[in-house]
This record gives sequence, structure tokens and C-alpha cells, in this order.
Amino acid sequence: MSEPFDVVDVIRTKRDRGLLSDAQIDWVVDAYTRGVVAEEQMAALAMAILLNGMQRDEIARWTGAMIDSGERMDFTSLSRPTADKHSTGGVGDKITLPLAPLVAVFDVAVPQLSGRGLGHTGGTLDKLESIPGWRASLSNAEMLAQLDDVGAVICAAGAGLAPADKKLYALRDVTGTVEAIPLIASSIMSKKIAEGTGALVLDVKVGSGAFMKELDQARELARTMVGLGTDAGVRTVALLTDMSVPLGRTAGNALEVRESVEVLDGGGPRDVVDLTVALAVEMLAAAGRPVGEDEVRAALADGRAMDVWRRMIAAQGGDPDAPLPTARHTRDVVADRDGVVDRLDAYSVGVAAWRLGAGRSRKEDPVQAGAGIEIHARPGETVRAGTPVLTLHTDTPERFDRALEALDGAWTVAQDAPARGPVVLDRID
Amino acid sequence: MSEPFDVVDVIRTKRDRGLLSDAQIDWVVDAYTRGVVAEEQMAALAMAILLNGMQRDEIARWTGAMIDSGERMDFTSLSRPTADKHSTGGVGDKITLPLAPLVAVFDVAVPQLSGRGLGHTGGTLDKLESIPGWRASLSNAEMLAQLDDVGAVICAAGAGLAPADKKLYALRDVTGTVEAIPLIASSIMSKKIAEGTGALVLDVKVGSGAFMKELDQARELARTMVGLGTDAGVRTVALLTDMSVPLGRTAGNALEVRESVEVLDGGGPRDVVDLTVALAVEMLAAAGRPVGEDEVRAALADGRAMDVWRRMIAAQGGDPDAPLPTARHTRDVVADRDGVVDRLDAYSVGVAAWRLGAGRSRKEDPVQAGAGIEIHARPGETVRAGTPVLTLHTDTPERFDRALEALDGAWTVAQDAPARGPVVLDRID
Repeated sequence: MSEPFDVVDVIRTKRDRGLLSDAQIDWVVDAYTRGVVAEEQMAALAMAILLNGMQRDEIARWTGAMIDSGERMDFTSLSRPTADKHSTGGVGDKITLPLAPLVAVFDVAVPQLSGRGLGHTGGTLDKLESIPGWRASLSNAEMLAQLDDVGAVICAAGAGLAPADKKLYALRDVTGTVEAIPLIASSIMSKKIAEGTGALVLDVKVGSGAFMKELDQARELARTMVGLGTDAGVRTVALLTDMSVPLGRTAGNALEVRESVEVLDGGGPRDVVDLTVALAVEMLAAAGRPVGEDEVRAALADGRAMDVWRRMIAAQGGDPDAPLPTARHTRDVVADRDGVVDRLDAYSVGVAAWRLGAGRSRKEDPVQAGAGIEIHARPGETVRAGTPVLTLHTDTPERFDRALEALDGAWTVAQDAPARGPVVLDRID
Repeated sequence: MSEPFDVVDVIRTKRDRGLLSDAQIDWVVDAYTRGVVAEEQMAALAMAILLNGMQRDEIARWTGAMIDSGERMDFTSLSRPTADKHSTGGVGDKITLPLAPLVAVFDVAVPQLSGRGLGHTGGTLDKLESIPGWRASLSNAEMLAQLDDVGAVICAAGAGLAPADKKLYALRDVTGTVEAIPLIASSIMSKKIAEGTGALVLDVKVGSGAFMKELDQARELARTMVGLGTDAGVRTVALLTDMSVPLGRTAGNALEVRESVEVLDGGGPRDVVDLTVALAVEMLAAAGRPVGEDEVRAALADGRAMDVWRRMIAAQGGDPDAPLPTARHTRDVVADRDGVVDRLDAYSVGVAAWRLGAGRSRKEDPVQAGAGIEIHARPGETVRAGTPVLTLHTDTPERFDRALEALDGAWTVAQDAPARGPVVLDRID
């Protein structure tokens, strides 16, 4: 009973649209991490924050309190500057895979702490784990050594980084409180600031396949995060990017690795290449080593990025030459008429890939390496009656029906090609 | 995994200001009672209900689902009609004690299931337990027999009545979600409807010492509850009554029993008598046995209500002639000047009585039978410099300081008597 606050008073303050004091925020985050504030109490507070909001100062303090709940990493011993990228999550978003080695080509180290997928968005670690032998867990010493040697690492965040956020994220996931901008921003930024990167580029997704369905919301989230990073001394930039359509031509773990390797081989879908290059240019500039777009593209075309990729995968036990797993069953979805695909809904494709086995509903569920969706015709591309628009992949064919349900109405064929805008919608720094 | 709903979808519906369907409400209340919906999930939903509200149909269904979580009682075997009263809780609110026997005088049975105090408001059972030998727990059969024989019973609600409400109330208490009108109304009414009373009079308190500080809020709560009762076939009326000043001249367990016995003896403070009589008139009318106010007052003056009281106490093992416990220590609070008391804040008096030991902070805390506050001068009454306005009672004198803190600024002395309004502010049926 020597706690300085009563948690019910703290909850009531936010419930009644008041401002939480610095001391209240420091205490409630710490007491929650210690288990003194119970899960149901934090759930009520999270819902009050979602519905009543937080001011910039409150979000900054909350972020700081989450950082202080754990350890901070330190990359200052490296000879190179560091830059990291974070995506708020989308469908077919494999950008981290080609991006990390591409940036490392230009002598900027990329310490990419990543997560697993939950729900309709895939997870970078799940994708890489489809490569035979590759392992996600590294000690801090292994991570530093690989950054020094290879220049890029994609691995799981250690348990010591922002443990308050881990606990709170798991709670938000089961209590309908994921979609709170203050909590999304502080969750992302507490991990990135604790990780110790010098520069950070945020890929804030907008559209049906993203958390943020509207540009206004996404812009508010981006501004909040850029403010938090800048205030903490991290050079932070955000790109708002389109997630109304899946990125590229694949959604699923091994399928996305295959597509990433195509990009690293100088090919791949144009939107994936464009976004990879745009983010690399931003990361290099934020890290203080500006490189022009053409020079960045050249590193994909001439194999330098592929070299770093192969060394990065091998350093974590993976065999870059091993064949990738494929699903045991496939089913085509065909066009019923001639025409041009005029929409393909990202959320529906994400849900379908998830139902095929590419994603998980609970943290402890396994994922199927080969499951997912191939996209043969993206918006603007011509189809003929009877030819496939999509191919579904799964090891468990009883899943086809529910995946097809998710895709019902998700795509349409018209006579004219739709006007497609650019992938990057806005930039905030 | 054969649950028909995902609780996160239910939470999101209310979070996004949607209406919960009947099936969603039935399921979520049942699944929470079964432990399938976790405490943190119900906490998030309760906060969303508090902030976004519920429509009348939703509240009615929620109330029904809580009733269906347990057993229903049945008083139809009694030869008399039944009427019950519920107060939303105030400071010095001992009305149930004289009221139940008073109504029973007129051949209407009063099955008064009561609770214990938590926080600054006292509990009827705590008060009666200061009578040597009296016990709160009765079986349903004992309760029916006493209603048949004596006509009035005040006892603890059995665990079988609306168990969903018991669980939810305990959760709301620790998550800052007590003050939600839909949840307050459904909590009260689920127990009263399950109890099976034919008529119900609600005493909805308004003012600093009540949950509802404003008349508008209290009126909304009263209307909601009257609607729920009426729809369930219970003849329901609500009085809105003043709780800006404590009721009567005592706050504390044995102190309030003493004052109740004074009322039953034809004396007692005028506001306590007036409210007791007003509620008795309403209960008798709602039970279909209307009795005029003068006749009701006569039953206090001529000892008939006292006779029922003595039999009611004795039937539950209590000795109505035993001396009541008194506190070991007292301290007077004196006026610093001549004048007229012009305010005495109910909430402050309630907190002070609680701190002296009359109330509890946690369910499992004991209460002191003798602790509390005597009020020598109520608003409108004359005081002289150096004479006591209040006397504090406790067994643990180290509590005086914090009780005095609560009373700091709680009362003032002026030159002129304030205008005091009636106890009953409004009536809703």
C-alpha cells in the first residue's frame, strides 16, 4: 500500500477527459509492468485513452515510461551510422526483405528488429522463417557482430526491450484497443527509440489493408510518431503509402520471399521496387549519407544488394540457395469475362491469405510456409474470360472455401483501366 | 471455439458507437459469467459502455441477461402483496430500517435484500449487524417464512441471484466504471426483478453524498430504472431525494440504528421521518394497498411499526432490547463563532465516518459498530461559539486526524439561516 497513486483515480482522470500528469503516467506504466495495476484496470484505461485521446506531452511521457521499463541498446560502437524502417503493416508488405540489404550496400547499418504477423497482416519473421535453416533469435552480441560484418540484420526483438509494451500490446489485442493512435504511436516508437537507431523511416500504410483506413488518421499517426522520434533525438521521417491494393503479386510467407529475391535480382513488381527504392533513399538521407535514386536502383540491378542479402541470410543459419517450401494444394480464381481488373481489395486478400494458413489468430498458432495468394492480374492489367486472376495456395485444402468467401466481391473487372496513383501518398518530417 | 461471437467484435461495436444485438448481449453476459470472456475484456467493454452509452433496448436486454445468469425468487405463495425499496446510496441513509416494518404494518410484505457498504456510503447490513445476535444470512425458506409471519425481512442477497451482476460489480469497482448509468440501472434492476417483488420504489439520491451529483443525471437514471421495472412487470416508482446534506443526525452503524429506533418510537429527525413516510406511501400505493400519509404517520406514533421492528429483529436472532455498541473514543468539533449552520457537506461527512471505521475500503475489511459521526447542528440550526457541531466516534483514535481532514471546509456558520428545500425533489413513474 505504499503506491503513490490509486489506479482508479488515474482511470477516472482519463475517463473524464482530463490530462494525466507525468507522475501518473510514469507510475501507471511501471505499476502495470510490475503487476500492481491489473490487466482489467489497464484495459479500462486503454479504452478511455482510445475514446478520449491523449495530448502530445502525454504520449511522449507514456513512450518514455515504456522505454524505461526495459533496457536500451547501443549501436554507437559501430563504425557506420544506423537506420531502421518500420511499417505499420499491410498485405503483401515484404519491403523489409529487399530494403535492409539494399541500404547496407551504401555503408549504413540496418538493425531491423521485427515481429510476427497477427491477423490479416503478415510478419517479417514468419516470412524469413520459410527459408530453410534461418533463425530469428539473436543475442545482442550476435546482432552487433552481424551489423559490423554484414551491415544488415533482421531479427526478433529481445524480451528486454520495452517489456511494458509487450504486455500492453498483448492486452490491446484481446480488448479491442489496438486502434488508438496514442497507443499505436507509443508502442512503435518506444521499441525503436529503445533499440538505439540513429535514423528511422516510418512507412505508414493507408487503405483497406492497413490499420489506418483514412488518410487523415494516417497523417495524424505519422505526425505523432515523427514528433516522438525527433524529440528523442532520432532523425525520423514518415512516408504515407497506399495499402488499398496488396503490395506486389504475392501475399504469404515463402511466396513473398520469392518475390523479394526477384526484386534483389533486378526484377520484381514495379510497386515493390518503387517503394523499396523510395524508403532506401529516405533512410540513407536520414542517416546522413544521401544517395540519389538512380544510384540506389543500380545496386538492385547490379547484384550488390543481392550479395548483402545472401550474406545476411547465411549469417543467421539460412541457406539462400535452398528451394523455398511450396504448398501442397493450389486453386485458381478465374475471370468470368474479358476486361481490365479495376480493383483488388487489400484487406480481403489479407484475410484470404490468413485463412489459407499464412497467418495466425493466436500468438501460439503455427503458420504454413507455403500458404498464400499469387496475384496474376493487378488493377490496370488485362484479363481474359477463363484465365486466372489469383491462385490460392495451402497445405490444408479444406481452407479454400473460407478463403474464397473472403475474396467474394474483392475484385472487379471493367472495360477501362482505372487511374492508379503513386504508391507514396505523402511525406512527413 | 464453438462460441458464436468474438468478444473483440462485440467490444469494437460499442467502442465505435454501434448498437449491441440481443444475441451479442445474451452471449457476452453469459460468456463473462462462465469465464470465457476475460475480466480485461469486460473492463474494456464497460468503459466503452460508460463513454458511449446504451439505448433503452440494449439496457433492457443486458438486465435480462443478468437475471438469466442466476435463479429467480418467487413470492406468489405469500398471502400478501410485496413491495421493496432500493436506495442508490447516501450518507446517513438508514431509511430501510424504519421503513420495512412500517410498510409491513399495512399488510404489505417487504422482502428487503440489502448489501454492505463500500466507500463513503454505509450498508444496511453493516448497520443491523451492530445489534447483538442479529444475522444477515437467511435461506430462501427462512426468508419466506419470516415474510409470512412478520411481514418484513432485511437480509443479504443469496449468491444465486444475478451472479453476473456480482462479478461485474466487483470489476467495475476496481476499473473506474461504476458511474455508467446503463450499468448502474441494470445492476440494481436485475437483482430487484430476479428477487420477484411485485412493486418497487426507488430512492434515487442526488447531491455531493450520492453517486449522481446532478439532478439531470439522477433523473436519467431514475427514468431508465422505472422503464426497466415497468417492462418486466414490476410496478416501479422513483423519488429523487436530496443528498447534499446527510440524512438525519447520525452517520455510522450503531449510531444509525439508534436513530432509526427513535423514528420507530415516534420521534427522530424530521427529514428521516418525512422520507420514511413518503417512501412508505409510495410502496403501499405501488403494492395496490394505498394508505394516506396521516395514517402512515400514526403507525410510527402509536408503536405498531415498533412492534414489527422488534419481531423482525428477533426473528433473525437479534435482541432488540440489548444495548447498542458504542465507540471507545469521541472527539467534538466545535463552532468558532455564534451563528447558523448554513451548509454541511454529505460527501465529506461520509468520508469522515468511513475513515473513523464505519465503512470499508475493501470487501473483506471489518467495520466498527460504534464508529461514526453525530450531527448536533444541521443546516438552519443555531450554534454558539465553543459548542459542538459534530461528535466523532471511533475505537481507534489515531483515525481522528484523517477524519478531521475530510471535514475541513465541509461546514460553515453564517448569520442567517439558509433556505432549505424539501427532501423529495421529484417523482418519476
